[in-house]
Amino acid sequence: MDIRTSYKNNNYTISVANDILENKLKTWTEQYEDVFYLIDENVYALYKDTKLKNIHSPIVVTGGESFKYASPLMNTIEKLLELGIKRNSLIVVIGGGATGDAGGMIASLVLRGVDYIHIPTTLLAHDSAIGGKTAINSLHGKNLIGSFYRPKAVIYDLDFLYSLSNDEKLSGFGEVFKHALLLSEIEVESLMKVTKDSIEIKDLTEFIISGIKLKMDIVTKDEHESGSRKFLNLGHTLGHAIEYQYKIPHGQAVMLGILFSLYLSNEIYQQDFDLVKYYNFMAHHGYPVQLLQNMNEDDMIKLMQQDKKNHQGDLITFILFSDTNTLTLTDIKKSDLYDYLRRIKETL
Amino acid sequence: MDIRTSYKNNNYTISVANDILENKLKTWTEQYEDVFYLIDENVYALYKDTKLKNIHSPIVVTGGESFKYASPLMNTIEKLLELGIKRNSLIVVIGGGATGDAGGMIASLVLRGVDYIHIPTTLLAHDSAIGGKTAINSLHGKNLIGSFYRPKAVIYDLDFLYSLSNDEKLSGFGEVFKHALLLSEIEVESLMKVTKDSIEIKDLTEFIISGIKLKMDIVTKDEHESGSRKFLNLGHTLGHAIEYQYKIPHGQAVMLGILFSLYLSNEIYQQDFDLVKYYNFMAHHGYPVQLLQNMNEDDMIKLMQQDKKNHQGDLITFILFSDTNTLTLTDIKKSDLYDYLRRIKETL
Ligand SMILES: NC(=O)c1ccc[n+]([C@@H]2O[C@H](COP(=O)([O-])OP(=O)(O)OC[C@H]3O[C@@H](n4cnc5c(N)ncnc54)[C@H](O)[C@@H]3O)[C@@H](O)[C@H]2O)c1
Ligand SMILES: NC(=O)c1ccc[n+]([C@@H]2O[C@H](COP(=O)([O-])OP(=O)(O)OC[C@H]3O[C@@H](n4cnc5c(N)ncnc54)[C@H](O)[C@@H]3O)[C@@H](O)[C@H]2O)c1
Repeated sequence: MDIRTSYKNNNYTISVANDILENKLKTWTEQYEDVFYLIDENVYALYKDTKLKNIHSPIVVTGGESFKYASPLMNTIEKLLELGIKRNSLIVVIGGGATGDAGGMIASLVLRGVDYIHIPTTLLAHDSAIGGKTAINSLHGKNLIGSFYRPKAVIYDLDFLYSLSNDEKLSGFGEVFKHALLLSEIEVESLMKVTKDSIEIKDLTEFIISGIKLKMDIVTKDEHESGSRKFLNLGHTLGHAIEYQYKIPHGQAVMLGILFSLYLSNEIYQQDFDLVKYYNFMAHHGYPVQLLQNMNEDDMIKLMQQDKKNHQGDLITFILFSDTNTLTLTDIKKSDLYDYLRRIKETL
Repeated sequence: MDIRTSYKNNNYTISVANDILENKLKTWTEQYEDVFYLIDENVYALYKDTKLKNIHSPIVVTGGESFKYASPLMNTIEKLLELGIKRNSLIVVIGGGATGDAGGMIASLVLRGVDYIHIPTTLLAHDSAIGGKTAINSLHGKNLIGSFYRPKAVIYDLDFLYSLSNDEKLSGFGEVFKHALLLSEIEVESLMKVTKDSIEIKDLTEFIISGIKLKMDIVTKDEHESGSRKFLNLGHTLGHAIEYQYKIPHGQAVMLGILFSLYLSNEIYQQDFDLVKYYNFMAHHGYPVQLLQNMNEDDMIKLMQQDKKNHQGDLITFILFSDTNTLTLTDIKKSDLYDYLRRIKETL
């Protein structure tokens, strides 16, 4: 499946399917005199004798999130310059969302921008594959330093996903679930049916594709996040606080955050999301739902207040369903939030 | 004088005049809740009790070129985040071309881009005030890491220029001279007449303005330097080699490079630039023209070959006048270049 972006210019194609890497990549690398590969060390270790065997002398970068810091970023830029990268060279970034974020930023900065292609290798990276955001982390928080810079293409070869750890799979599935829920209740019902017993990569293709399409629709309308792009942060307000406090993978924390958003939508907007059904689904697959029972209200509120995006004075902003298909930014007072956090424990 | 850019979008105004800082700046800072000032330490030391006296708790950054490196860049970004910069804050960058280049890059990266204004304080910075290029230096060369990012406004208060050292004034004047020459022979004649005895800042206003306008015309047509923007590098091929070898200020080296380009234009395209007149003008003002007599041909060629922009195999590219008002990229063979470098010594 090929999905084409619809920006005013600098459009690109996201190809999603099994076993597409070699052919698709070739059509790109043939067009450039010099190609430089940046590959996550864990991915390279797993695939260097199979899917990546034709890639010679790549720059193997530190794995996952540890790459998203100033000094590995700058070292990699210097390395590319040392190897003689030119304005008309191509960078191919192979790895998860973290490698993609830092790799994209590197491509945007070296020689004031060279072409790059992203080859996502995680389930969560279906999210970062679209949107054009690049970033590294600051001492003061995640993703605070970066740019908007689009790849020339995204080649999402789903073969890579079979080697993900269960933790990573659950994390990525959290975002797939979020996109399904943002799309429609029918979509999320259908996703839950398919994954009722277990989450199998092979069953997720259509949901990955519809998730990418949904995100594309939103970000092409609002690249710089002034309006509707914010809705993509469904579940992130409490999610980030849980992620930070309990050091669990991003998408797993978002999953718990989504549950809280559904609870709030029921309470504030009289929706009738079947919380028990969602709770059981998450528990069955091993999401750490018990944290919603164990969390300390004060700690959570303090962390949510530190998240500059989501708070103004005494108000904390949540993304809620005000109607079945309508999302709304809703500001909740600290004191009310305290009650909601306490009462969801009794409800679950 | 206000000059408005004419890009398709994100246009901005460059205001050039004496004593405009306070008023112009106020109209901008009033529009933002938070304003952060980045000021070159040398500029701040000179003006903190006068023109900059109303600026409270600025971030004073290391002076000149030493700011254009990864670690001061990243430290300043962290500092801004520590101080609580938001997406809707404004950064005001006050300093020469170096402060502007790194400050613009900082603005482009913090929170994926916040608004910024540049207040150039050197003569050379009339050049960097337009064009939207930001950059820091790499271990492997100048300006190799950066982005394209436009300020919201440039406020060029010419009062600042009176405190420049003679060396800096001569360097900045080199670029003013280049722009005049690129504009027309009449323009450069007129500039040379006005500065016949000495180069006085007060006499340069109209030439600074026409230089900015010329550069604007060129860069709006060709922001990413695929075509005509290259002509702005007149004098830079040999200039960079001289700058590197003899560690003289950029604009002074460019001035010598321009003389060589005029010589080549005479030799190759039968132009009749009066070399002796230009040589005497430069010598009179203290440009180190004797370097053109002392330089070693082999050293110069080796350095020009290291400059990736200007060479392909055995050919080195120069910007020459093929006709009075026509510029041409001209590739010269190494062996021919050797002869030209040797022969200009006899001619001068
Ligand atoms: N730019 C965006 O729009 C956007 C959107 C969502 C997330 N993100 C970012 O993405 C990151 C999270 O994404 P992620 O979970 O893909 O992170 P990741 O890149 O850190 O990958 C997670 C772990 O899986 C390993 N891994 C990668 N591919 C593998 C494979 N095929 N088999 C086995 N192991 C593999 C990695 O080495 C790493 O240890 C965060 O930094 C987040 O900020 C960005
Ligand atoms: N982005 C662009 O398009 C562009 C174009 C041309 C040059 N540049 C860059 O600009 C830099 C050179 O510009 P520059 O000469 O302005 O450099 P600069 O900023 O290094 O200033 C030169 C020196 O003058 C001092 N100074 C600044 N203002 C002063 C004042 N009013 N009085 C006294 N001293 C003052 C500085 O502290 C510094 O020591 C280079 O890094 C070059 O790469 C960029």
